[in-house]
Amino acid sequence: QEAKPRYGLIGQMLAAPGKRDDLVAILTAATGAMPGCLSYVVALDTSNPDAIWITEVWDSKDSHAASLKLPAVRAAIAKARPIIAGFPHSFETRPVAGV
Amino acid sequence: QEAKPRYGLIGQMLAAPGKRDDLVAILTAATGAMPGCLSYVVALDTSNPDAIWITEVWDSKDSHAASLKLPAVRAAIAKARPIIAGFPHSFETRPVAGV
Repeated sequence: QEAKPRYGLIGQMLAAPGKRDDLVAILTAATGAMPGCLSYVVALDTSNPDAIWITEVWDSKDSHAASLKLPAVRAAIAKARPIIAGFPHSFETRPVAGV
Repeated sequence: QEAKPRYGLIGQMLAAPGKRDDLVAILTAATGAMPGCLSYVVALDTSNPDAIWITEVWDSKDSHAASLKLPAVRAAIAKARPIIAGFPHSFETRPVAGV
């Protein structure tokens, strides 16, 4: 049975002004142990003080979809939503090396 | 001595038509053991058949700069250059969680 293709996401998220650190804290706390998640990096944008970048690698698209049903993740999304100001960039990828 | 900030890069690279697999192979072969490199993921763009995404995390900006002088990396860059058609996106980040 041929291994499922890996699934990757690269997204730039805008925090409400002055709320970036709060957003990073929420995302970091919730994304520690998610089944099938091979990498979940939260990074500050170096030119826009309100922006962050999230780069994710999953062992399959299904694992990613399942994570959105995890109580901790649902709670984090609800908590973060009021201080998210937008998603300027979002790209789906298929990781092939490095993880 | 306060730890140096991590350094991250997110870039979309265009291969010459039909050369994406060759480009992925060159990049993957050269980026195995680079001092200070915490993550180097090569991924296929899922909408553009000529595009790849490279997401990197380094323990410092200096480590990244030093990697560009490594013989294996220089050779890979020279080998890849003829089949690189462009860099539509390139973002510098400061990873703060997940690595």
